[in-house]
Amino acid sequence: MSKGLPKRSEDYSQWYNELVKKADLAENSPVRGCMVIKPYGFAVWEKMQAILDKMFKETGHSNAYFPIFIPKSYLSKEADHVEGFAKECAVVTHYRLKQADDKSGLVVDPEAKLEEELIVRPTSETVIWNTYKQWIQSYRDLPLKINQWANVVRWEMRTRLFLRTTEFLWQEGHTAHATEAEAKEETLLMLQVYTDFVQNFMALPVIQGVKTESERFAGAVDTYCMETLMQDGKALQAGTSHFLGQNFAKAFDVKFATRDGGLEYVWGTSWGVSTRLMGALIMAHSDDKGLVLPPRLAPKQVVIIPIFKNEDELEAIDAVARGIIGQLKELNITADFDDRDTQKPGWKFAEYELKGVPVRIAIGPRDLDNGTVELARRDTSEKISLSQQEVAPKVKYILSEMQDSIYKKALKFRDEHITTVNTFDEFKQVLKNKGGFIKAHWDGTAETEMRIKEETKATIRCIPLNQGAKAGSCIYSGKPSVQQVYFAKAY
Amino acid sequence: MSKGLPKRSEDYSQWYNELVKKADLAENSPVRGCMVIKPYGFAVWEKMQAILDKMFKETGHSNAYFPIFIPKSYLSKEADHVEGFAKECAVVTHYRLKQADDKSGLVVDPEAKLEEELIVRPTSETVIWNTYKQWIQSYRDLPLKINQWANVVRWEMRTRLFLRTTEFLWQEGHTAHATEAEAKEETLLMLQVYTDFVQNFMALPVIQGVKTESERFAGAVDTYCMETLMQDGKALQAGTSHFLGQNFAKAFDVKFATRDGGLEYVWGTSWGVSTRLMGALIMAHSDDKGLVLPPRLAPKQVVIIPIFKNEDELEAIDAVARGIIGQLKELNITADFDDRDTQKPGWKFAEYELKGVPVRIAIGPRDLDNGTVELARRDTSEKISLSQQEVAPKVKYILSEMQDSIYKKALKFRDEHITTVNTFDEFKQVLKNKGGFIKAHWDGTAETEMRIKEETKATIRCIPLNQGAKAGSCIYSGKPSVQQVYFAKAY
Repeated sequence: MSKGLPKRSEDYSQWYNELVKKADLAENSPVRGCMVIKPYGFAVWEKMQAILDKMFKETGHSNAYFPIFIPKSYLSKEADHVEGFAKECAVVTHYRLKQADDKSGLVVDPEAKLEEELIVRPTSETVIWNTYKQWIQSYRDLPLKINQWANVVRWEMRTRLFLRTTEFLWQEGHTAHATEAEAKEETLLMLQVYTDFVQNFMALPVIQGVKTESERFAGAVDTYCMETLMQDGKALQAGTSHFLGQNFAKAFDVKFATRDGGLEYVWGTSWGVSTRLMGALIMAHSDDKGLVLPPRLAPKQVVIIPIFKNEDELEAIDAVARGIIGQLKELNITADFDDRDTQKPGWKFAEYELKGVPVRIAIGPRDLDNGTVELARRDTSEKISLSQQEVAPKVKYILSEMQDSIYKKALKFRDEHITTVNTFDEFKQVLKNKGGFIKAHWDGTAETEMRIKEETKATIRCIPLNQGAKAGSCIYSGKPSVQQVYFAKAY
Repeated sequence: MSKGLPKRSEDYSQWYNELVKKADLAENSPVRGCMVIKPYGFAVWEKMQAILDKMFKETGHSNAYFPIFIPKSYLSKEADHVEGFAKECAVVTHYRLKQADDKSGLVVDPEAKLEEELIVRPTSETVIWNTYKQWIQSYRDLPLKINQWANVVRWEMRTRLFLRTTEFLWQEGHTAHATEAEAKEETLLMLQVYTDFVQNFMALPVIQGVKTESERFAGAVDTYCMETLMQDGKALQAGTSHFLGQNFAKAFDVKFATRDGGLEYVWGTSWGVSTRLMGALIMAHSDDKGLVLPPRLAPKQVVIIPIFKNEDELEAIDAVARGIIGQLKELNITADFDDRDTQKPGWKFAEYELKGVPVRIAIGPRDLDNGTVELARRDTSEKISLSQQEVAPKVKYILSEMQDSIYKKALKFRDEHITTVNTFDEFKQVLKNKGGFIKAHWDGTAETEMRIKEETKATIRCIPLNQGAKAGSCIYSGKPSVQQVYFAKAY
C-alpha cells in the first residue's frame, strides 16, 4: 500500500526523493536545477508563508518588492559579499532573440547586448541597500523594517528538490537601525520568530547558535542560525538571521543625521527562510508510508472516506459526513469528503497516508447502524471507533495532541542524538555509527575547523547560544577551548 | 498642502508620475525599467492579491509554482507565441562571474556559457504546457486548474511605473480541459471573476469584450478583455482571459485518453492580471490632492489625528481615540492613531489626503468638551461633526457609501465618454476634443484597423460582448460591418 516508497532504513535519500514526488509536493523541471512546486506542496508552503507573514507584521515589518535584477557592479561593492555570490549566479547579457539567418530557430540577437550585465538576484542586500541610501536621511527614517517574498537564483551544481535548487522561493528581511544595539536586538528577535515558527508550527526542535567565520553569510558580521536534525542523523540549517554591522551601509554610503546633529552610518540586519523548510518538514517527521504533517500546516486536516456497496448506502453516509464537516468547520478544522467511485477505499487510505492527512475518518454500513465512525490518526496509525456525536470535539483534541506529540517525538530523537565527546577518535566513531549532533571542544581556529571537515565531512553547525560556556581542550588540536560547539554532517 | 502635486488639468501624465512617488507607492530603480514597490504601494497590492486569490480558490483553482527560466527552444514551439515574446526578453547566457585578470572588477566567465540560453519568463504557457504533458494522461486528470503568482520580465523600451515595467508582478492562470465548451466556459468565468473584482473592489466599471486578431495574445484563439477608462480619456486594459484552443496542447503534444477510449488533444485557457491594476486604480479615482482609494482596498481605512497643545490634552484625546479604534476594529475597520509630535496636524491632513486614507477623524480640545469629533471623507472632502458615540456605525456607513459613490462617479464619467460616431471625420474630432471610448462600425479587416491606428493612434479596444450586434457600414472603408466596436487611445 506504500505505492512503492523505499524504506527509510534501506535508502533514506531515495525515500525522500520518491516521497516528494509521489506525495505530489514537487518535481524536477526540465530547466536544470529548477523545481516545479505542485499544488499540494504549494498549499503547504502557502500555509507556512501566511503564518510567517503574520509574525513579521506583528513584529513591525512591512512587505515591499525590489527588482529581480542586480547590476553586476553592485555585487562588487561589498568585498566579502562578491566572493560569496559571484561564483554561482545567472547572468543576463542580452535583451532580445531573433530568428537565425538560416531559419534554423531562435538565436541571441548580438545587437541587443546589455552595456552592463544583470545578475538574477541570489539575495537582495545590494539592490536594497542601494535603495535605502535614498530612503534614509535622518534618525526619523529609522528603523526601517522591510520584508520581501521573492524568488532567488543560485547556480548550484548539485541540486535536490526543496533542499538545494537553482531557483527557490524565500522571504528576505532587510532592516536598518540607528544603533548597533538595536540592530543586534532585531537580529536576535527574528531568530526567535523563526524558532517559534519552526518549533510551534513545523513541530521541529531547533538549536540556536551563531556560525563560525567560515560558515558566515558573505557580508555579515555575525550569522545566527537554527539547526535542526533529520531522521538520518544529518543536520539541516532551517534559517539564518544576520547582523550586518555597518558593512552594507559603508558599501552603499547609507548615512543618517543623528538626533544630536551628527552624521553616522546605519546598522543593518538581514534574515531569511526558504522553501528549504519544506525539505526539513518532510524529512523530519515522515515515515515509510509517506508524509507526516503537523496538523497546523496540513492543507486538509481531516478526510472522510465512505465505504459503500450501493447508492443508498453512499447517500446515508453522505448525510453523516456533511454533518461532521459542518461541525469541524465551526471549529476551524478543514475536512474533505472523498466520495469518488473511481477509486476503492483501500487505495484512498494509502493515498491519504502518503499525503500526510492527519486524521482519516471511515464510515461504513456498520457505522451507520451503530451511529459510529472509525477514526485513524496518521502519526501513530492508531484507530478508534467513536460515536458520531463525539467526532468534532475528539478531532479537535487529537489534532492538538498530534501537534505536540510530533514535536515531542522529534525532540526525543534530537536529544538522543546529541553526543558529547572528548577525543577525536570518539568523534569519528560517533559520526560513523550514530550520527546526529556532536558536542565537542574546538580551539576556535578556521584551520582546525577545515581539517576536521576534510577528514570527516562534519562541519561546525553552530556555536550554541545560552548553553553556559565551559572551558576545555580542543578534541583535534588539544589547544584551549572556551566552549563546546555542535558538529554534524549536514544537508 | 498638495506637496507640489501638478494639477491633472495641466499635466495628467506628470500628475500621475508624481503621485505614484509622493504617495509612497513605487519608484524607479536603478535597474532600467524595473520598479521598487514601496511598502505603502505593496500594502494595496497585497489586499488586491488576497481578494483575487480567494476568488480563484472559490472557483476551484489551486496555486503552484513553475520555474522562472524557459529554455530558448520552448519559446519556438508555438508559432505565434514566439513572434510575440522573443522580441523583448531577458536572456541568460552564462552562470558565473569572475574577477577580471587585471583586477578591474567582475567579468562574465567565458567558461561558464550555457549550452542553451534561458529566457526569464515573459509568461509561462510554454514551461507549464511542457509540464502538463506529464501530468495529463486521462480524462480523470481533467480539468486541471492552476494559478501562479509570479514575477515576469518583458523588455519594454518605454516604461512607466505600474503601467508598463520591465519586471512586473502578476498572476497567471493556466487550465486544461477535456472539451472545447468547458475551456470556453472557463475563459468567460475568469473574465467574470476579474470583472467582479475590478468593479466591486477597485470601484472601476469595465467594458467586457473580445480582442481583434491583431491585439490577440500570441498563441490564443480568442483573447477576452476588460477595458477601463482613465480620467484623461484614455483606455486601460485591466485584464485578459485567453481561450487557447488546442494550440499549446498541439505544440507540446498534450493528449488525454477520453472516457470512451479515444486519444485527444486537451483544450486550454490562460488569464492574468498584474501590478498594472495598481496604475488603473491610481489613475481612475485620484484627484489633485492625491490618491483616492476605494475603502475596500485601502490598507488603512481611518486615521485619527489629535489636535493638542499639551500632554494633558493629548492624553485625554488618546483615551477617546483608543475607544473609537476598538469599536472600529470590532466592525473589521482598520484605523490608526497618529499622535506623532514631530509633525503638525495640517501636515498630517495633507499627508493622509495624499495617501488616500478614506476617512480622517480629527479630535481637538473643543471636541473633548463637546463629546464630538470632526470627520472628513477623502473622496468628497465633506466634513461633519458628530458625537463620539456615533462614530463607529457612521464610519461603517460612510465607507460603504464611499465605495459605491466612487464607483458611480467613475461609471458616470465612463458613460459620458462613450460616443457613438458614424463618420471618420466625427471619429477624429471626438478623439481630439473629447477622448474616451468611441463606438463605431468597422469592416472587420486588419487593414482598416491598422490604417485607423496609423492615422489617429486609436486602437480597437474590444468587440463588446452582450451588446446586441447591429449591422452598419465601416466608418473608414464604408464596407459592411456586423457590429460596432470600441475604439480609444490606450495605455
